[in-house]
Amino acid sequence: MNVMFQKVAMLGLGLIGSSLCLAMRKHGLAQNIVGYAKTPETRQVALEIGLVDQVYATAAEAVCGADLVIMCVPVGACGQLAQEIGPHLSPGAILTDVGSVKGTIVRDCASFVPQGVHFVPGHPIAGTEQSGPRSGFAELFENRWCILTPLAGGDAAATAKLEAFWQACGSNTELMTPDHHDLVLAITSHLPHLIAYTTVATASDLESVTDTEVIKYSASGFRDFTRIAASDPTMWRDVFLNNKEAVLEMLGRFTEELAVLQRAVRWGDGETLFNLFTRAREARRNIIAAGQDTASPDFGRVQKKS
Amino acid sequence: MNVMFQKVAMLGLGLIGSSLCLAMRKHGLAQNIVGYAKTPETRQVALEIGLVDQVYATAAEAVCGADLVIMCVPVGACGQLAQEIGPHLSPGAILTDVGSVKGTIVRDCASFVPQGVHFVPGHPIAGTEQSGPRSGFAELFENRWCILTPLAGGDAAATAKLEAFWQACGSNTELMTPDHHDLVLAITSHLPHLIAYTTVATASDLESVTDTEVIKYSASGFRDFTRIAASDPTMWRDVFLNNKEAVLEMLGRFTEELAVLQRAVRWGDGETLFNLFTRAREARRNIIAAGQDTASPDFGRVQKKS
Repeated sequence: MNVMFQKVAMLGLGLIGSSLCLAMRKHGLAQNIVGYAKTPETRQVALEIGLVDQVYATAAEAVCGADLVIMCVPVGACGQLAQEIGPHLSPGAILTDVGSVKGTIVRDCASFVPQGVHFVPGHPIAGTEQSGPRSGFAELFENRWCILTPLAGGDAAATAKLEAFWQACGSNTELMTPDHHDLVLAITSHLPHLIAYTTVATASDLESVTDTEVIKYSASGFRDFTRIAASDPTMWRDVFLNNKEAVLEMLGRFTEELAVLQRAVRWGDGETLFNLFTRAREARRNIIAAGQDTASPDFGRVQKKS
Repeated sequence: MNVMFQKVAMLGLGLIGSSLCLAMRKHGLAQNIVGYAKTPETRQVALEIGLVDQVYATAAEAVCGADLVIMCVPVGACGQLAQEIGPHLSPGAILTDVGSVKGTIVRDCASFVPQGVHFVPGHPIAGTEQSGPRSGFAELFENRWCILTPLAGGDAAATAKLEAFWQACGSNTELMTPDHHDLVLAITSHLPHLIAYTTVATASDLESVTDTEVIKYSASGFRDFTRIAASDPTMWRDVFLNNKEAVLEMLGRFTEELAVLQRAVRWGDGETLFNLFTRAREARRNIIAAGQDTASPDFGRVQKKS
């Protein structure tokens, strides 16, 4: 037990919010956890399964007296939320978020944060394709990275305390500027999601291959794309609307590379294909070496016949 | 124990070949399993870990007296292999393969199969990103589909026996024409792999984001692409060289869909993005309902800090 905050206000209790509640419980990081959620259903579930000690129907009530406030809502909803809670934040409190885009969050929120409250935007690089208050688990952040993007001139002690909090949840932490964060995530996350969505859409609209066939034979690669493409639609709409420039830049580069491979397929250029495939395999080995995935041969997916 | 074949010759002992050996052992499907592998290392490992009872340095020796011969080599190597073993195949034997493309395998192999030998091309829709004789496991085919593409006028009893063999290995089986198979796999497997390779290549060539950053933050989506892109380069080169028309067709459709999404990102058209993302999520639910993946929230990936 290492109580770091007296009262933590969780604004939004979806996958990340609920996982954070469970992680705080597991490691004893908060004396008191209160929550806000938009729907009565989520508020009820959150109490029922013990994510929070109290739950409120407005964010303004939830943040009263909290020394840590975490916005766990879609990127596009953060600005309005900050505006709503701004007048109710306690002096000395740390305000953070978990959004996948940082530039527009800073733009949309910073002006609503009163003097004396420390706004330190953050982004835990962790998740699953699930959503909702029942999808969380305490281990979600273990051995994952959490990026903080403190503002110029911000309070260094607040940043350090938030770093320590994420580390106590099992994460590694890293500091960078909001703009650099958005570029890094455009390639590691936003582009792969857009591509996965596109692939699934392509498969849905074929006349020559039925949906049933696509599903039956999905184990051959398509399946992994659908997992990524199953993430929350609202969250991802907001990501693309809020990281437009970096996503378009990465898309342009992707399209160029794809043209090269397409040409190699058309002209039967096996050497170009082989060399690129070999290079890609190397990238995979580096990810396993860095502990960001497992090399176990069945990937935890062995299923018994029912 | 349900011995279906007296002597099975495994030509190639990589991921699929070694998994099939272990599945046959587990279910007692073969009296005797012999193998052929190109490299002395693989032959030695195969004996050492008990994949096969005997191992040979030539495929011609391995197939002598076998009543089931399974070619488990890259698609591009099947024609030459069929030519080499043709004169040595026993009358009444079943010859099959596990290649990811069926049209060119039929074209390259059929003429070398002597009268009285039953050639039934096949493709188990199962795999991992691993390769080599140590990567196999007996459960690889359980609850997966195996597609057989029997030739027009072929022996129905041989096809039925091969179906029963795959079912005994835990698979569901389905029959279709080679051309339709190649179209189905182009969308469910070949396009996703090409896209994954392209994404990994795009990420490797950035000036603004370092390779180290890409690897550190890969848990946000990129990771799953690298897994797909880590598959055997020779195998995949051969797939694209041998299923050119269907792959180019799917690529064309993919590029059209991508242009629509790219335009939606550029113009901030949140409705188009949201609708497409919602549709994609539905496809995922269907795959889970069909038992081709699991919805467990951490996907078997929870890692303890070391």
